[in-house]
Amino acid sequence: MLEPAIHAEVLIEALPYLRQFYGKTIVVKYGGNAMVDETLKMQVMQDIALLHYVGIRPILVHGGGPEINAMMEKMNLQPNFVGGLRVTDAATMEIVEMVLAGKTNKAIVTLLNQQGAKAVGLSGKDANLILACKMESPHGDLGFVGEVITINADFLNMLAEQGYVPVICSVAIGPDGASYNVNADHVAGHIASAVGAAKLVILTDVEGLYRDYKDKSTLINEMTTQDADVMIATGAADRGMIPKLEACITAIEGGVPRAHLIDGRQAHSLLIEIFTNTGIGTMVRSS
Amino acid sequence: MLEPAIHAEVLIEALPYLRQFYGKTIVVKYGGNAMVDETLKMQVMQDIALLHYVGIRPILVHGGGPEINAMMEKMNLQPNFVGGLRVTDAATMEIVEMVLAGKTNKAIVTLLNQQGAKAVGLSGKDANLILACKMESPHGDLGFVGEVITINADFLNMLAEQGYVPVICSVAIGPDGASYNVNADHVAGHIASAVGAAKLVILTDVEGLYRDYKDKSTLINEMTTQDADVMIATGAADRGMIPKLEACITAIEGGVPRAHLIDGRQAHSLLIEIFTNTGIGTMVRSS
Amino acid sequence: MLEPAIHAEVLIEALPYLRQFYGKTIVVKYGGNAMVDETLKMQVMQDIALLHYVGIRPILVHGGGPEINAMMEKMNLQPNFVGGLRVTDAATMEIVEMVLAGKTNKAIVTLLNQQGAKAVGLSGKDANLILACKMESPHGDLGFVGEVITINADFLNMLAEQGYVPVICSVAIGPDGASYNVNADHVAGHIASAVGAAKLVILTDVEGLYRDYKDKSTLINEMTTQDADVMIATGAADRGMIPKLEACITAIEGGVPRAHLIDGRQAHSLLIEIFTNTGIGTMVRSS
Amino acid sequence: MLEPAIHAEVLIEALPYLRQFYGKTIVVKYGGNAMVDETLKMQVMQDIALLHYVGIRPILVHGGGPEINAMMEKMNLQPNFVGGLRVTDAATMEIVEMVLAGKTNKAIVTLLNQQGAKAVGLSGKDANLILACKMESPHGDLGFVGEVITINADFLNMLAEQGYVPVICSVAIGPDGASYNVNADHVAGHIASAVGAAKLVILTDVEGLYRDYKDKSTLINEMTTQDADVMIATGAADRGMIPKLEACITAIEGGVPRAHLIDGRQAHSLLIEIFTNTGIGTMVRSS
Amino acid sequence: MLEPAIHAEVLIEALPYLRQFYGKTIVVKYGGNAMVDETLKMQVMQDIALLHYVGIRPILVHGGGPEINAMMEKMNLQPNFVGGLRVTDAATMEIVEMVLAGKTNKAIVTLLNQQGAKAVGLSGKDANLILACKMESPHGDLGFVGEVITINADFLNMLAEQGYVPVICSVAIGPDGASYNVNADHVAGHIASAVGAAKLVILTDVEGLYRDYKDKSTLINEMTTQDADVMIATGAADRGMIPKLEACITAIEGGVPRAHLIDGRQAHSLLIEIFTNTGIGTMVRSS
Amino acid sequence: MLEPAIHAEVLIEALPYLRQFYGKTIVVKYGGNAMVDETLKMQVMQDIALLHYVGIRPILVHGGGPEINAMMEKMNLQPNFVGGLRVTDAATMEIVEMVLAGKTNKAIVTLLNQQGAKAVGLSGKDANLILACKMESPHGDLGFVGEVITINADFLNMLAEQGYVPVICSVAIGPDGASYNVNADHVAGHIASAVGAAKLVILTDVEGLYRDYKDKSTLINEMTTQDADVMIATGAADRGMIPKLEACITAIEGGVPRAHLIDGRQAHSLLIEIFTNTGIGTMVRSS
Repeated sequence: MLEPAIHAEVLIEALPYLRQFYGKTIVVKYGGNAMVDETLKMQVMQDIALLHYVGIRPILVHGGGPEINAMMEKMNLQPNFVGGLRVTDAATMEIVEMVLAGKTNKAIVTLLNQQGAKAVGLSGKDANLILACKMESPHGDLGFVGEVITINADFLNMLAEQGYVPVICSVAIGPDGASYNVNADHVAGHIASAVGAAKLVILTDVEGLYRDYKDKSTLINEMTTQDADVMIATGAADRGMIPKLEACITAIEGGVPRAHLIDGRQAHSLLIEIFTNTGIGTMVRSS
Repeated sequence: MLEPAIHAEVLIEALPYLRQFYGKTIVVKYGGNAMVDETLKMQVMQDIALLHYVGIRPILVHGGGPEINAMMEKMNLQPNFVGGLRVTDAATMEIVEMVLAGKTNKAIVTLLNQQGAKAVGLSGKDANLILACKMESPHGDLGFVGEVITINADFLNMLAEQGYVPVICSVAIGPDGASYNVNADHVAGHIASAVGAAKLVILTDVEGLYRDYKDKSTLINEMTTQDADVMIATGAADRGMIPKLEACITAIEGGVPRAHLIDGRQAHSLLIEIFTNTGIGTMVRSS
Repeated sequence: MLEPAIHAEVLIEALPYLRQFYGKTIVVKYGGNAMVDETLKMQVMQDIALLHYVGIRPILVHGGGPEINAMMEKMNLQPNFVGGLRVTDAATMEIVEMVLAGKTNKAIVTLLNQQGAKAVGLSGKDANLILACKMESPHGDLGFVGEVITINADFLNMLAEQGYVPVICSVAIGPDGASYNVNADHVAGHIASAVGAAKLVILTDVEGLYRDYKDKSTLINEMTTQDADVMIATGAADRGMIPKLEACITAIEGGVPRAHLIDGRQAHSLLIEIFTNTGIGTMVRSS
Repeated sequence: MLEPAIHAEVLIEALPYLRQFYGKTIVVKYGGNAMVDETLKMQVMQDIALLHYVGIRPILVHGGGPEINAMMEKMNLQPNFVGGLRVTDAATMEIVEMVLAGKTNKAIVTLLNQQGAKAVGLSGKDANLILACKMESPHGDLGFVGEVITINADFLNMLAEQGYVPVICSVAIGPDGASYNVNADHVAGHIASAVGAAKLVILTDVEGLYRDYKDKSTLINEMTTQDADVMIATGAADRGMIPKLEACITAIEGGVPRAHLIDGRQAHSLLIEIFTNTGIGTMVRSS
Repeated sequence: MLEPAIHAEVLIEALPYLRQFYGKTIVVKYGGNAMVDETLKMQVMQDIALLHYVGIRPILVHGGGPEINAMMEKMNLQPNFVGGLRVTDAATMEIVEMVLAGKTNKAIVTLLNQQGAKAVGLSGKDANLILACKMESPHGDLGFVGEVITINADFLNMLAEQGYVPVICSVAIGPDGASYNVNADHVAGHIASAVGAAKLVILTDVEGLYRDYKDKSTLINEMTTQDADVMIATGAADRGMIPKLEACITAIEGGVPRAHLIDGRQAHSLLIEIFTNTGIGTMVRSS
Repeated sequence: MLEPAIHAEVLIEALPYLRQFYGKTIVVKYGGNAMVDETLKMQVMQDIALLHYVGIRPILVHGGGPEINAMMEKMNLQPNFVGGLRVTDAATMEIVEMVLAGKTNKAIVTLLNQQGAKAVGLSGKDANLILACKMESPHGDLGFVGEVITINADFLNMLAEQGYVPVICSVAIGPDGASYNVNADHVAGHIASAVGAAKLVILTDVEGLYRDYKDKSTLINEMTTQDADVMIATGAADRGMIPKLEACITAIEGGVPRAHLIDGRQAHSLLIEIFTNTGIGTMVRSS
């Protein structure tokens, strides 16, 4: 058991951050190991519930690649990726949607509710939350892979004002009523921008962004959107990090002051990022 | 094209019903052919949207047996029923939930939104909407088959006041966080009771309830909850109708003035039931 | 009795119009035969009540020439018209006001309340609803004939938000506190403009506007305010239609999207105009 | 011009009454000379406007016998009274309604609006404000003479909350939609009771109630409802005072703390009654 | 006892002023004899309570020089003034604050509450109401004498909307958390400007401003801010009147329509200024 | 610097308490060393600000004995205590009020505002917050020593809803307008009861209550109000603890679930009591 004085020290160090984010929205992109490891999973849920209870309005966005693959396997279907994107034919899209909206999303909602956070699970179809169009790809027809066009921020703000925590999966609705598979990082970036979030936090499976992704000693603490543009253009960023960087750029260009890539493998990294003086991961800000 | 005078006649006949149900909630249990036939499906969605636009607050409840079976088949799993109830082991429950919350529910939401109704899809896990416990069955352990304990009416009322149409699938949350497969008719009955609905309307694949279900000439126009109790107790009702009758009893004992079993195979039977002088199907009222 | 399917067809055809006019204001100028024939009268009241119940906000404006003449006759006074306008001396104005505000208005209010519409009768004096000044006429002094200057839209909006249907007679208040006899068509046009109505509908005793008012085959389905200006300037319009055309122009120049001249002799022409695909009468829109 | 000190003395003497009636409703029955004499009329309107501006909610109720008689005369009709009540056939009722709702009422509204009081004129038909039934009389059939059954207090409270001053004439609506001529004193008593007024003030043409109405030295300053019952039963009260006493009894039995019969011939008697220590007229309170 | 007619005359003369100031804020600088003489004191409290009850929102600002000096004397401290300003070392500031916020302020609050006005006493520290900086003086270091920088108008408006009367003493908070002694006239001027008052009224111990302060026959009835600037610059104003004139200028340049210097020695001069046609004292308006 | 993991551990341990006290009021009696030692003082202010930012509504109550004595000394007055109570003649009461309301209270307000807590300082006179009567003492006339009669909870709740932190000194108002010196512990107990607080926390200069106050090893962790009654009756409690125990009893009998006597000398003991599993001090609960 910790010394009482330690408790006090930590809580008081959190005070300026409590003040800063009171009543503000923080969009969290949930993914990677933090979605797989049972202990990490519970810790993220505790973190979100804590944000909720200290008067911050969290919005959780998630995808769910591994569970989709597992389900496809059970149905003897072969996942097919081109340029890092899942080729999504109608049969695949059906599975993507069922798994994300019917399984992953509801499991997160249940965990959050157990922490007392009044969570409501949503897909991009509910209240036309995420409108998308078909993505044109240089790699050929990717099927129902979509790009975000607009977010129904009114609906999210209404839920937040009523004290609910939205949990959103990366399934969008097309103008034609078709389901689209959209990148969850991108969704998080667009939502952060649409609701005027105070922060976008993306949980990853790395410490942050490396200047040279092959060299762990080159972790970047802080960068601008311009730096991010350059890293994407020059291929300096690891391919898996590109949509995450793009999401940060979308958010910041939409007026979000700060976006963070943090290590979801570290216990309670979300709380540490928000409530301590210790900067962790990589922070992106306006140029 | 109809004569203008016909338009006027119909609209004016609807006037007293518009007056009666203005601002009231009507719970609709959606199921059977109306969920399978593309034309009927669209017609129900138009009916719900119309209710929404004339100031009535519809809540849609659905299950989805055929789609669950189809999905199980794709996964080489064998549905197993005992006493009319699906034996729901963990693997089956996962499929039930995915199909209902991730596929059927979102498809209905999309159709309603295309009709302009601002629909929001929910499972019983969202905001702890439907709390259930494990059902004890004389037929042995049925696994994750549950019975409804309570409904979070506050959440539904909040959505209704904000102008959203809730679409709810029959998946419940247990006190332990487990998913439960609950009967959709029962869910509709409990919701009607919890939100103080003005009507419960259950769409079926028959004209209504028959005094003798083997004789189509014995259709019952109106009955009391007492009559319903007797029909259940004496086995006079067709087994498929029993949960529907039970839902009507739950609703009416919970204060809902009228419950209706109507023929979902008839085009726009919902509108006809609500807005015309022609009684259709079987109406259940308090003894 | 109509077939149930007919009911459904009509209601569903109305759906897009329900959606379009939900929460919007429609100003109806009530007059002519529809105010005299008992059956037509009741039908208009049903139509207004129906608009009220489907979430549309109707405002009714009326004059009442025949009843004024009848009352003058009882009092051995001779109506006197110059250039189509009633010469309104003090004695006549007293009768005009008594008949419109004390008899015609209250009779309409009673009929609407019997249809469940929560009607409130108003003259232009209540809450200074219609402010007018004396009309200068080339035909000499017309006495208390006035022209509308401004409308107290706040009061009408307040009543509408509280769920009341305003019924307004064409008596205005002058800056000096005198009563003024104003043209009811003009009042309707100004009110439609002031409250930001979605439609102005004027009930007449003809099918609509004719290009040549002596030739019934020249009915105009749709025209612009520019066309209307021309018809007034060239004398192509029947004199009785001129104030109605002017009201349409006032409304549309004030931002109302559409104004309609429809046949009040046709049963429920108001509902048919609003809720069916069948265009009736003459529609005026912006040039 | 008065000394400044006098101003101060008067205003300060008013302070405890301002405090006592702040936000409360005072129902004023307006009638007699105060409705005929131009100077008195204007003074009553100033008094009502002043009540409005110091945060009190006035409601004005009026009849209008002399103007009805004058109009009947113009139409060569003979007023006919039995037991002090106007025999009201259909032709008479039409005139009563026209005069009260269309002439007297609107004239009062205009005067109040000129004093800045945002007045709205109403008859008992508007929003079904005064519901009445036919009065059964020992003197035979009196035609459309009615007795008040209920008041729509919600509508009056809504107007008061929105800052409007209701001006109500004594025409009621029957359950059948017919107009009824009701006693204005009675209307005032019922309204005071229905809206929970803090006071009912009835303007009369006498100083107050006399113990012996033939002896002016027997003015009663204060009496109970029991005293009033006795005076009515024993015939001690002048016949013209009976409905006024009945109105006081209705109000006080309905929970209004005090009812007053004051001299409307005295300039600003309303203000003097409310804002000074000088008791004037006759005050009726609970036994 | 005054004649009833006098009461009526005074109340009716007040009517246009009641109308004009309804719902508006009037800032009153309380000081001088009116704060010392027991009778005058009670009269000012009655005046403020009356403003409160007629729907005006009063804000009272006060200093308290004589009480500070008396307390310093008790503590054997010598007041020290330079150029009319109290040299305020730390010990003096402690006494200033204690006396103003702990004694004078609470005594005023008590008197107002006894008149029914729901008063709340505040210093410039509460809710950071008055932010000040150290005053730079040509006369050398004056210690904790401050100049007003900003007013927290939101807090005052919130109290006013909730029906409370703020009573504010002239102690301010510095950015460093130190207490500052600020001129109460200046505070009143800044508050009037910040809350958008309809009037600033400063109670003085003279009749008003004299063109030549040695000649009582030169009382100024009305002047512009330009005139005031000239009088300050040319030394034509008595030194004690300079901060009062400056406060008037601050208020009027901040958008307050009128500022008044009135004689606090005259009974109820506040009511007389506001509610009568008799202009008293000196009125300052925009150039 | 602490390890990030430590931060996370502490914050997560706080989660259930954040949940439990969200939107609830906690009344803190501030006194003793925590009011004298500069470091402790600042820590209490941080604690209160933190409560404010995590959605808890703190109310601070304080007395100020040592500062009163110091001020009396400066004025050559001799404090005089009988039975532990300050004999409070008029001169002493003036000093008590000035020091508490004008010095101590404002100093606390300033410190809280520097921590961002929007504090508003109040005495029992503001909005008639604390109504008291003269205390009858067996020790003779104690002058202006009072006992709390009622609390104006509406005013405190209004401030809390608007986001302000009330800081209240132990000066009360008598029905006659006199100031009364009341025990600050008692005030805290009455306020906790009146506002329906979730907790009363009293900061003391001891670890808590000892079963035998001469033996530090007999610290009581938890006791009932019955135990407290016994300790007071039998003289087992140290005299200084009696009003604190009485305050706990008042609070708990008024419906407050828990009252705590904690050690104000321990850094951040308030946060530790509220947000950790470590019970500190003595907790009192219902018998």
